[in-house]
Amino acid sequence: MKKVAIGQAGGPTAVFNTSLIGFLDHCHAEVYGVLKGYQGLVEGSFIPLEGSMLKKVEQYRSVPGACLGAGRYPMTEEALEKAVNNLRLKGIDTLVFIGGNGTMWTMHQLEKKAKKIGYDLQVIGIPKTVDNDLAETDHAPGFASAARYVALSVRDISKDLEAMRNFEQVRIIETMGRNVGWLAAASGLLKASESDGPHKIYLPEETLSADQFLNDVKNLVAEFGFASIVVSEGVKLNEGKAVEKAFVNGRSVLGGISKQLSSFVQEELGLMARDELLGMNQRSSQFASSGQDRLEAYEVGKKAAHLISEDISGVMVTIERLQKSYYDYQFGTALLQKVAAGGERSLPKLFRVNQQAFYRWLEPLVGRDVEPFPSMIQRREIHEKKSFRS
Amino acid sequence: MKKVAIGQAGGPTAVFNTSLIGFLDHCHAEVYGVLKGYQGLVEGSFIPLEGSMLKKVEQYRSVPGACLGAGRYPMTEEALEKAVNNLRLKGIDTLVFIGGNGTMWTMHQLEKKAKKIGYDLQVIGIPKTVDNDLAETDHAPGFASAARYVALSVRDISKDLEAMRNFEQVRIIETMGRNVGWLAAASGLLKASESDGPHKIYLPEETLSADQFLNDVKNLVAEFGFASIVVSEGVKLNEGKAVEKAFVNGRSVLGGISKQLSSFVQEELGLMARDELLGMNQRSSQFASSGQDRLEAYEVGKKAAHLISEDISGVMVTIERLQKSYYDYQFGTALLQKVAAGGERSLPKLFRVNQQAFYRWLEPLVGRDVEPFPSMIQRREIHEKKSFRS
Repeated sequence: MKKVAIGQAGGPTAVFNTSLIGFLDHCHAEVYGVLKGYQGLVEGSFIPLEGSMLKKVEQYRSVPGACLGAGRYPMTEEALEKAVNNLRLKGIDTLVFIGGNGTMWTMHQLEKKAKKIGYDLQVIGIPKTVDNDLAETDHAPGFASAARYVALSVRDISKDLEAMRNFEQVRIIETMGRNVGWLAAASGLLKASESDGPHKIYLPEETLSADQFLNDVKNLVAEFGFASIVVSEGVKLNEGKAVEKAFVNGRSVLGGISKQLSSFVQEELGLMARDELLGMNQRSSQFASSGQDRLEAYEVGKKAAHLISEDISGVMVTIERLQKSYYDYQFGTALLQKVAAGGERSLPKLFRVNQQAFYRWLEPLVGRDVEPFPSMIQRREIHEKKSFRS
Repeated sequence: MKKVAIGQAGGPTAVFNTSLIGFLDHCHAEVYGVLKGYQGLVEGSFIPLEGSMLKKVEQYRSVPGACLGAGRYPMTEEALEKAVNNLRLKGIDTLVFIGGNGTMWTMHQLEKKAKKIGYDLQVIGIPKTVDNDLAETDHAPGFASAARYVALSVRDISKDLEAMRNFEQVRIIETMGRNVGWLAAASGLLKASESDGPHKIYLPEETLSADQFLNDVKNLVAEFGFASIVVSEGVKLNEGKAVEKAFVNGRSVLGGISKQLSSFVQEELGLMARDELLGMNQRSSQFASSGQDRLEAYEVGKKAAHLISEDISGVMVTIERLQKSYYDYQFGTALLQKVAAGGERSLPKLFRVNQQAFYRWLEPLVGRDVEPFPSMIQRREIHEKKSFRS
């Protein structure tokens, strides 16, 4: 019987563990869990996933986070070597990791390292990302749940702001997404009319000038009495560098553009503005997760298990969309090398210039059970007239 | 037929509009909506809630925010006089407002002002608050949905942190609540064991010393590898003043203690810490709202409608809990004067020293359909042993 090790790496998602369970339910081998992501590989922290430990892990089917531990760990040449040696010492034939861009790159490096020292190691990647920046797949599990959270939050927060507009006119809502705009763009999914928030969505794919921003806000407040603005954490103002909150453990943490923009509004336009970070719930809220996302997370895990018996190596499981008119899909594979070389996948121009095309693509992933709220333009118009007359 | 005006004031909740609909469904009178809260009273912005406008408003049954507009507006003596005059000009017999502490105080002032000038005005308050700081009622609509959001978020964010603890050890999660700890305390409702977050909850009712805080964090990280800390926005560090983010329109906006505490952890303990503001979703997320809260929000609106025909004035609708062993309740009334005099209701000492008593009180309001996640102490222990040996 094969010896298989599976781990989780990078930032968690709401459905990270679901992929793990999908894999475990269909893997007929001796399976070890790698603890704390790459760190466990380098330190040789493997636990047998059997008996009571397997039962414990199985309870995590719908729990956010990563029950094996994930996190970040610098994979130097030395670390890669240690990892391969630990796998060899343990007699592990197959390494499976659930992760994003960094993970697929690391898996590819481990594959090369193993080949170099003549160790026959099967390597398989299972996609996971909230940013949706993985190449070679239509989308990856984790994104749809995050998108659902963002769409629901912005829908609700915009209604709150609309009610408060005699006190507070502008909210700058910041989403995750690193250098790509998929998640920020998702914020408009549940918008029903021009007067509803979000009124503007700023993406990292497009440079934002300070003048354009101030003009947008001024016009929106004049027209609707309030401005609900969404900005991706990776947005660059004035063609400058994205605001970097901190540079921790060698990894830059984006964030802070919303604070910069809201201060700007207060100073330049004299309007009451607040910055709102959607925060960790974007990647962890089980209570807002998408059923379709959970299903697909499970299926990519299952697909990886099947690839083991087919002796396929050096690939990441992919989701391939088959139809444009309705949602149909199948699971496939892409070479780790190609995924790694693909880099961060931006929101394509097609979707940036045609929001409706993007929302048609997104809706089946997020779930058709969420709806826009009614809009009250007419009431607002009556209201404004009343205020001026009185 | 009576002429009735109804308005909404203060910060919105997820069920603010539900109370309005509960009222409209049961009020057999000529009803006007007051736009933008007190501002509409002062400026005489009333719209007839009938025909197509009533139909529009009715669509807002489950929509967060305030469909009539709410917000903040300074109620000076002059403003109070204008308000009463506008009501008299319009021939309005009854004024109903849905709001919190400030609203009940304002309603009481309007009642006195009307009496003084000999205008016979019936005044009724409908309770609404996410902070749960209204006196004379067991709790008020809006709180339970906010509490549900906080409990779910902290449960989920803690699992995310646990997975990331080799990269990030501490999260300081800040809740709303102004000067009372009800909402922050709710964050522990779904905690299953000592190792689960939240590990500590700091309330405004209790002074927090910098030393105690650092010690808590140090001990938690030593024991569990991570520390999930909840802090109410009203918490004072070192017996000083609560951190004030801004002082806007004459109203102090609390917030910022989490940032202060996380910087403190990084500087003093050298651990990676992040501050996390739960933000506006606390008061606006329809997608995490409590069914029981929505039901009660509707019922307090209905009760207010019934009070109109009973010719009762100068009262706020209350929720009275009848049993301690199971959840049973009825609706009553309290004098506006007493509610206003009661000030901000703190989390009682009974609940502060006995968390389980508080959670027994809270659970039926938040809903028994939300559950704690399984905890993984055993895995963690195995893990730590593995790491040290390897």
